[in-house]
Amino acid sequence: TVFDSDELEAIGAARIQIALKYDEKNKQFAILIIQLSNFAALLLQQDQKVNVRVAILPCSESTPCLFRTRPLEASDNLVFNEMFWVSISYPSLHQKTLRVDVCSPDQNHMEECLGGAQISLAEVCRSGEKTVRWYNLLSYKYLKKQSRQ
Amino acid sequence: TVFDSDELEAIGAARIQIALKYDEKNKQFAILIIQLSNFAALLLQQDQKVNVRVAILPCSESTPCLFRTRPLEASDNLVFNEMFWVSISYPSLHQKTLRVDVCSPDQNHMEECLGGAQISLAEVCRSGEKTVRWYNLLSYKYLKKQSRQ
Repeated sequence: TVFDSDELEAIGAARIQIALKYDEKNKQFAILIIQLSNFAALLLQQDQKVNVRVAILPCSESTPCLFRTRPLEASDNLVFNEMFWVSISYPSLHQKTLRVDVCSPDQNHMEECLGGAQISLAEVCRSGEKTVRWYNLLSYKYLKKQSRQ
Repeated sequence: TVFDSDELEAIGAARIQIALKYDEKNKQFAILIIQLSNFAALLLQQDQKVNVRVAILPCSESTPCLFRTRPLEASDNLVFNEMFWVSISYPSLHQKTLRVDVCSPDQNHMEECLGGAQISLAEVCRSGEKTVRWYNLLSYKYLKKQSRQ
């Protein structure tokens, strides 16, 4: 494939593919973390492991709001295919925001997050149909650099 | 109107309504900041002014990437109806993320941002049709409190 300069710029963003579905009968919200693409754009070292952290914000005290995929060896395209279920009513779901971070455990076993996306759930559909979408990930190194300027 | 407890929880999120449109003929991306609803959820003092700050990230060096609406006196529902145009190719647009912050000038004329939303532009449509959506705003006071826990 040959890319023009604009397209080269376009493939520069790291992305995450996520499927979302609300099952109204059982009042369950499903988050499927499918895969990451073009991960090198987040400036990761080659030998690191990577996992995806999913938070449904603001957190409710009554239900879990933080989930993590298993860690995988970093490569440019990473397939997770991990599903998380959240028990939540439809009106409650609509005031939540999904925060998705791509993180890596550092040498002290702390989690360092490399980039993320934020997805408003204000207009999630109640039909039970799955919406599958790609989301750009904003690099935290880039954001930090920006805020210092 | 009578709300049940779930609905009461649901109207708890501050929201912003935004219209987005890509005009492929002229390679222009339009961002229309329509209005804020339920603004009290961001814990604003009554006598503050409020504006919306829009950033297209990562910033390109060649084109402006930061825009601000005029400030309005805070009230629960604020109508801005301000449009911003960005010259950008369609492939470039697809790797951008829209960061929308609701801010207020403090007493030292610094900008304090109260909450925001992040919108991936990876799947913006090139048809030229306007998509109008509501997005939940995450309160920065809430996020700070969370990260201290």
